[in-house]
Amino acid sequence: MSATLSPTPRTTLNRAKERARTEREDLYGVLDAGLVCHLGVLVDGAPMVVPTGYGRLGDTLYLHGSTGARSLRSAHGTQVCVTVTHLDGIVLARSIFHHSVNYRSAVVYGTAAVVEDPDERLTALRALSEQLAPGQWDTVRQPTAKELAATVVLSLPLSEASVKIRQGPPKDDEADYALPHWAGVLPLTTVWGPPQPDPALPPGRPAPAHITDRA
Amino acid sequence: MSATLSPTPRTTLNRAKERARTEREDLYGVLDAGLVCHLGVLVDGAPMVVPTGYGRLGDTLYLHGSTGARSLRSAHGTQVCVTVTHLDGIVLARSIFHHSVNYRSAVVYGTAAVVEDPDERLTALRALSEQLAPGQWDTVRQPTAKELAATVVLSLPLSEASVKIRQGPPKDDEADYALPHWAGVLPLTTVWGPPQPDPALPPGRPAPAHITDRA
Repeated sequence: MSATLSPTPRTTLNRAKERARTEREDLYGVLDAGLVCHLGVLVDGAPMVVPTGYGRLGDTLYLHGSTGARSLRSAHGTQVCVTVTHLDGIVLARSIFHHSVNYRSAVVYGTAAVVEDPDERLTALRALSEQLAPGQWDTVRQPTAKELAATVVLSLPLSEASVKIRQGPPKDDEADYALPHWAGVLPLTTVWGPPQPDPALPPGRPAPAHITDRA
Repeated sequence: MSATLSPTPRTTLNRAKERARTEREDLYGVLDAGLVCHLGVLVDGAPMVVPTGYGRLGDTLYLHGSTGARSLRSAHGTQVCVTVTHLDGIVLARSIFHHSVNYRSAVVYGTAAVVEDPDERLTALRALSEQLAPGQWDTVRQPTAKELAATVVLSLPLSEASVKIRQGPPKDDEADYALPHWAGVLPLTTVWGPPQPDPALPPGRPAPAHITDRA
C-alpha cells in the first residue's frame, strides 16, 4: 500500500485538521504502541464496542477470540471499526472551553474476514500474542488443535484509516492569556509494575528476562 | 433505578460468566475511574468508534462535542454504545491459549438524546469537566454563550449495561501447572507526571493545589 493514508470522507477530519496525520508510518506507530483496541461491530442493528487484543502484520490487522464471542460472530463479512487510543495527558486551559486531552489515536474501517488458512491463522495468533506479551509465544506451551478450533481469527486490511495526534500546551483565546490562571498539561503515562508471580508457582522460580526487562 | 443491573440478552455474558458484575455500584466504579470512553455510533450504516470524554450524574451518562462532530451529529435519537476500559495487567499463563488481561470494563447501550435544557446542559458540562480535570470548572473562565452554542451535549441513561472485571493470576489447564514456565501477572498502572506549565505562562506562577495534588 502507499506510504500515505488514502483519505475517504469518513477518515477526513472536519475539525482540528492540524491533528490529522496522513503518513502510514504514523498509523503503524499508534497501532504498534497499543495493547488493546476497541472493536465496533453491528449487532442486531445497533453498535457494540468491545475491548479486545489485536496484532499487526504489514498492512493487515488481526483480531481473535472465542468461537462463542458475540462480537466476533457478528463481524465476519461486515463493516467494522477498530480504534486504538493512547491518552497522554490532560490539557488544562485558561477557559473551560479550551480544555482538551493530548492523545494519539487510530481509527481503522473495513470489512472483517475470518481467516481460514491454517498457516495464516498461526502467524496471526503469534502476532496477537507478541503485541500483548512479547517473547511468550516462543516460551510457553503452544496452542493445541482443540484450542485452535475454539479460536476465531479475523483480518482487517489497513486500507482506510485516520490517525489523530494532539500534543503540547493549551491553545487559549488570545484575550485569555492575560487571565491569572495556571495553564499547562498534566501528563499521563502507563507504567509496568514488578511481575507478580502466580501463587501456584513453586518457590524460587524467577521470571524470565523478556518479562522482567519489560517491567 | 434498581441497585442491580437489569440483564438483557446483549448484556448477559455467554462466556467467562465469573467476570460479570451485576451491581450498579460496580458500573459506577468503572465509569467514575475513567477519563475517556469509546463511543460507538452508526454512520451511513457502519460502526464508528471514537474516543471522547464523558461525565456521570446519577444514572445518566453525558457526552459532549462540537456541533460539527460527525459522531455526535449521528448519535441523537439513535442507539449508541459507550465503553470504558481499564487495563490493569497482562496475564502470563503456562500456555498461549490461557494468556489474558486483567481489566475492568463497562459497556453501556442506549438511545442518545441531545440535551436542550440550559440548566441541564451546564450541569452536564460541569460533570464532563470534573471527570477529566477536577477543580477546574470553579477556577478558570466559564463558557460564553457563543461557546455553549457551539457545543452539543448528549445524554444516555444508564439503564442497560454490562460490567466485566478480571483480576488475579492465570487459570491454566490442570496438566500445565507441572510445566517449568514462569506464570503470573505483569501489572499496568496509569500514573500522572508532574504538571508541565504552558510556556506562555509568566514565570513563577505555581500550579494550584487541585492540580499538583493529583500529580
